[in-house]
Amino acid sequence: MISGKTKVIAHLGYPTESFKAPMIYNPWFEKTGTDAVVVPMGVKPEDYRAFLPMVFRLSNIAGALVTMPHKVTTVELLDEASTTAKVAGSCNAVKAGADGRLIGDMFDGEGFVRGVLRKGRKLEGAKALVVGSGGVGSAIAASLAKAGVSKLGVFDAYTPMMDGLAGRLRANYPDLEVAAGAKDPAGYDVVVNATPLGMKEGDPLPVDVDRIDPATFVGEVVMKTEITPFLAAARARGCAYQIGTDMLFEQIPAYLEFFGLGSATADELREVATIRY
Amino acid sequence: MISGKTKVIAHLGYPTESFKAPMIYNPWFEKTGTDAVVVPMGVKPEDYRAFLPMVFRLSNIAGALVTMPHKVTTVELLDEASTTAKVAGSCNAVKAGADGRLIGDMFDGEGFVRGVLRKGRKLEGAKALVVGSGGVGSAIAASLAKAGVSKLGVFDAYTPMMDGLAGRLRANYPDLEVAAGAKDPAGYDVVVNATPLGMKEGDPLPVDVDRIDPATFVGEVVMKTEITPFLAAARARGCAYQIGTDMLFEQIPAYLEFFGLGSATADELREVATIRY
Repeated sequence: MISGKTKVIAHLGYPTESFKAPMIYNPWFEKTGTDAVVVPMGVKPEDYRAFLPMVFRLSNIAGALVTMPHKVTTVELLDEASTTAKVAGSCNAVKAGADGRLIGDMFDGEGFVRGVLRKGRKLEGAKALVVGSGGVGSAIAASLAKAGVSKLGVFDAYTPMMDGLAGRLRANYPDLEVAAGAKDPAGYDVVVNATPLGMKEGDPLPVDVDRIDPATFVGEVVMKTEITPFLAAARARGCAYQIGTDMLFEQIPAYLEFFGLGSATADELREVATIRY
Repeated sequence: MISGKTKVIAHLGYPTESFKAPMIYNPWFEKTGTDAVVVPMGVKPEDYRAFLPMVFRLSNIAGALVTMPHKVTTVELLDEASTTAKVAGSCNAVKAGADGRLIGDMFDGEGFVRGVLRKGRKLEGAKALVVGSGGVGSAIAASLAKAGVSKLGVFDAYTPMMDGLAGRLRANYPDLEVAAGAKDPAGYDVVVNATPLGMKEGDPLPVDVDRIDPATFVGEVVMKTEITPFLAAARARGCAYQIGTDMLFEQIPAYLEFFGLGSATADELREVATIRY
């Protein structure tokens, strides 16, 4: 129940119609008696640079969830960006410090990493391949680097994007082995599809699944279907895997912690969510 | 249930802790399946001039409820102010026209007027005395003028404020008889206390109640207690009356109509409200 004491979390994006976060966070806040509410705010690109600092001047703002098309722009508006946001080149979580400074982080990849760890896999010292160097691929690569992988393969058909990510990884993680440009999944402990392949019927698989070892853990970002053709093929080989929406639910606890609003497990959040995946 | 399709009504004021509107509007929206939500936004005075136009650039904004300390400032930020807002010198409701122009109105006095009419009294051609020319007194005077009273007595111990109101009334309603400076209630059909007298124990009565005719309708703005000493004294003389919170609940239908979100009756709103008065 919203009152004058309720803390507002601004959900900033445009358009707003397909926002899902309110239907996950708000039932959770209600269940746990957390006096906060996620409010969709449709901010057009031309207004965003003025709106973001302004919304943080509200006396009852707890933070912002940032989504399309503002994740990249947000990085330059921050006073303090996490290493993950810098490497990812985008930011989806903003809060204000006591001094009003805007502090940002990026949790898309953190959700992926938390899901892998919760499934009992170790990432410290592991070798991971991330296919796709767009927003979500860069975020996953950034979080895998933070989680301590020893080798990170990155690939994107659009070379400048891939090279940009590889450069940011090398600059921020000098001890990390970064392999850019090859997408052979052989020899990797973790292989992630971070391309849109699997969204459309008849899409080719993102990597040559026959080259994936059955001991490899396989991850997916496509949320359109739970078991994409890529996951189905990897599963047939005996690989353990993580579905696309795990990343979504696993990152919400990271947001809650960032905003100082407790935490939750992905399963608890799935249970209260009034949308289904 | 808030989703990406929900329309936001920004409740602008500072501080927000004592806001009541969310606990009246939101249960009503839920009951009627209206996909809108009132969200408290604590805007400090130094930010308000920048924030108001900015919040109206959101793609999912339905309007703004404006409260202390921004009601006066709002008038100068509008592209189009109603006559009532101009006479009142303040604005508590803003919406955007199709062209993005900011349109404002003032419903505090409208709530008073609707309550009087709903209690079966006629205002067209009536004589009304409003004691107190501050924000709420000016708003009630403005709405009584709009409702067609033939004579309006206004009084305030602080003469410049009273004279300002009288001047705005005369400028906007040239046919209205405006009597400024006397607070003898004799001869008036409606007498309103729009001063804070009655908030504190031992306050003097705002007018000489012995001079009020039993046929006179008496109104009160103080909400602290339902039957203030002024209402008790008038009731003892046999006067019909209206309590302070009636003005609050009676103005909400005016807001709903202004925002294009249907309407309601004050009684329906009192029933769903999760706060009690």
